[in-house]
Amino acid sequence: MWENELTRELKIKYPIIQAPMAGGITSPELVAAVSNSGGLGMIGAGYMSPSQLRKQISEVRRLTDYPFGINLFIPSEFRVDSEKLNLTKAIIQPFKEELVVKEEPILPTYEGDLSTFHEQLSIVVEEKVPICSFTFGLPSPEVIARLKENSIVLIGTATTVQEAIMNENAGMDAVVVQGSEAGGHRGTFQGEEKQSLIGLMSLIPQVADAIRIPKIAAGGIMDGRGIIAAKCLGATGVQMGTAFLVCEESGANILHKNAIIKASENQVVLTKAFSGKMARGINNRFITEMRRYEEELPVYPLQNELTKAIRKASAAIGIPEYMSLWSGQSPRIAKKLPARELVKRIVTEAETLRVKL
Amino acid sequence: MWENELTRELKIKYPIIQAPMAGGITSPELVAAVSNSGGLGMIGAGYMSPSQLRKQISEVRRLTDYPFGINLFIPSEFRVDSEKLNLTKAIIQPFKEELVVKEEPILPTYEGDLSTFHEQLSIVVEEKVPICSFTFGLPSPEVIARLKENSIVLIGTATTVQEAIMNENAGMDAVVVQGSEAGGHRGTFQGEEKQSLIGLMSLIPQVADAIRIPKIAAGGIMDGRGIIAAKCLGATGVQMGTAFLVCEESGANILHKNAIIKASENQVVLTKAFSGKMARGINNRFITEMRRYEEELPVYPLQNELTKAIRKASAAIGIPEYMSLWSGQSPRIAKKLPARELVKRIVTEAETLRVKL
Repeated sequence: MWENELTRELKIKYPIIQAPMAGGITSPELVAAVSNSGGLGMIGAGYMSPSQLRKQISEVRRLTDYPFGINLFIPSEFRVDSEKLNLTKAIIQPFKEELVVKEEPILPTYEGDLSTFHEQLSIVVEEKVPICSFTFGLPSPEVIARLKENSIVLIGTATTVQEAIMNENAGMDAVVVQGSEAGGHRGTFQGEEKQSLIGLMSLIPQVADAIRIPKIAAGGIMDGRGIIAAKCLGATGVQMGTAFLVCEESGANILHKNAIIKASENQVVLTKAFSGKMARGINNRFITEMRRYEEELPVYPLQNELTKAIRKASAAIGIPEYMSLWSGQSPRIAKKLPARELVKRIVTEAETLRVKL
Repeated sequence: MWENELTRELKIKYPIIQAPMAGGITSPELVAAVSNSGGLGMIGAGYMSPSQLRKQISEVRRLTDYPFGINLFIPSEFRVDSEKLNLTKAIIQPFKEELVVKEEPILPTYEGDLSTFHEQLSIVVEEKVPICSFTFGLPSPEVIARLKENSIVLIGTATTVQEAIMNENAGMDAVVVQGSEAGGHRGTFQGEEKQSLIGLMSLIPQVADAIRIPKIAAGGIMDGRGIIAAKCLGATGVQMGTAFLVCEESGANILHKNAIIKASENQVVLTKAFSGKMARGINNRFITEMRRYEEELPVYPLQNELTKAIRKASAAIGIPEYMSLWSGQSPRIAKKLPARELVKRIVTEAETLRVKL
C-alpha cells in the first residue's frame, strides 16, 4: 500500500514528510524520530546560520541512519522603504516598551541573504544531505545543476497550478503542494498571495492533472483520514507541519504547543504582521492590533527582523500574545505524542480506513 | 458502496447533491436530470417569489418522479445605513451609465423577506417537497417542528465546527459542510466570514469528530476523486455546485459557463461587492474596481438589490465584466456535459478509484 514513486525516490517507508518548520521547531530529536519511524524528517534551515546548520546535521546524523532532508529559503530582492520602516518602528514601539525590549534590529540585505543561501547550499553538498527542499521560489538553473550532480533529491513548493508547473519545468524531482489550510508562511512566489489561497480539495486534483512529478500535499493534514484523502485527490505523499509541531520531540515553545492544542479551527488566521509575508497562525493580541496596518508594513524579510525581538521577549516571559503561533487549520486534531507514536497511529488509521472504503 | 445513512434518508441512489444555486441556475431540467440520474436535484429558491417557486416545483415534478429538494435563505435583520447606501449609489453610478441602466432599485426590508420566507415554507409544506435545506442561518424551532411534522427532511449549512454543532442541536437531519473552496455565497451565520474560511481537508474531519448527523461536503468537489476524498475525511455525501452549473441543462448564462470553463483556480476570488455578503467568483472588472470600497458597502441584502440591475444589464449585452460569475476553486476540472453523463462519469471514476486505493 505505501510504496510508490516518492517513497522509492526518497528511500523512505511511508510517504509522510515532517514539514521543515523554521525557527527552532525541527529539533534534531524530532527530525530523527520521524526518519526513524519510516517517514522523512526535515530540518527547517531557512533562518539558520552556516554553523547552526552544520551542528544540526551532525546531531541528526548521530540520532538516525535513515534519510532526512533540509529546507532552504530562496532569497528574493527587496526594496528598503524608509517610510514604511519608520512607520512599523513607531507602531511596534509600545509593544517593545511593554516587553522591555531594548535591542535594535540589524536589517537584512539581499546580498547578505544570498551569501547565506550559498553557504547553506555548500553545506548541503559537502555533508551529502540526501534531500533538499525549497520555499519562496525556485533555485537558479546553476544551483539545480550543482545539487543534481551531487545526487541530491530536489523538492520545490507550489501554491497554484502555475507554480507547480514552474517547479516541474525547472527540474524539481517532487513538489510540495501547499493548500490554503497550511500553517506558517505561504510559499507563494508567483502572483498575489491573496489569490493563491487554494484549498487542497481543489488544488491537488488540478495540480495532478497538470504535472507528472510526485505531488506532496501540505495543509491541514493531521491523521490517516487526511493521508488517504490526499492520495484519492492525486497526491503521492503528504507533508505535515502542525501535527509534528505539537509532538514531544519538537523544539516549539510549550506556549505554542499549548495554544494549538486549545485552539479551534476558526481562531487560526492569516496575517502579514509578523514578517511582511502572509502566514497562518493562531490569532492573538499582536495580530489583532496590527491588523489595520497590514498593507503598509515593510516587506519580508524586513518586517520579520523588526518583530523578532518582540516575539522572543514574549516567549521568554511566558505570554503568547506577541508570539507567532503558526498553525494549520486543523488544530482540533492535534495531539501531543512522541513522533514515533504519531506516525504509527496515522499509518494504522490510514490502513484501516482504506480497507473500510 | 454507495448506500449509507444519507442515501437512505433522502431516498436516493448516490450521495451526490446538486447545490441549490440561486438566481435561475437550477432550471427544472437540471434539477430533474440530477434526480433522474440517482443524485438529488435541488431548487435554489432563495430569491424566488411564491409563484415562481410553485411553478418551478410543478415543472420539476413533470420531469421526474424521484425525490428533489428546495433551498431557502434564512432572513436576517439588517439596518439601513443611508450614508452607506448613498456611497454605494455614487460608486456604481458610472457603471449604470456605462450599461445604460435606468431603473431604481426597490430596497428590501426584513419584514418583507420574512413574509416571503414564510410563504415559501407554506409552499414546501403544501407541495410536500420531500427535502428542504437552509442557508444563512437556522430556522426557528417552530419552523423546524412544522416541517418535521410534515416528514420533510431538513438540511442545514455550516462553515465552522461551531455552526455544525448548532445545526445538529437545532434538529437538522443532515448538514452541508461548506469549505473555503466553495463558489457563491458563504453560508457563515455565526462569527466573522473572514475567519470561517476553512478548507475541506481541515473542516470535514473536525466536523466529523464533533457531530453525528450526516455531513455533506461542499466546495471544490467536481469528480470522483473529490467524492472519495470527502468520504475518507468523514463526509457522508457531497454537494456540487460549479460542476453542475456548467452542465447543459443548467440555467446559468452561457457567459457564466464559459468564464468557468476558461478560468484557472487563482482567478477565483472572494468578494462582497455584489451582495454585501462574502462570495466566491471569477475576478472581473466589477470586483476589481469595487475592491477598495468593500468594507464600506451596505450589508446583504441591500447591496445585492443595488447591484442587481447592473448584473442583469451586463448579461443582456453579453459582457461578463459586471456579472457575478460564481465559481468554486476547481474551475479547471469543469466540463460541459449533460448532467446525467456527469453523474455517471463521477460514479464510475469513484468506483474505479476506490478499487485502486
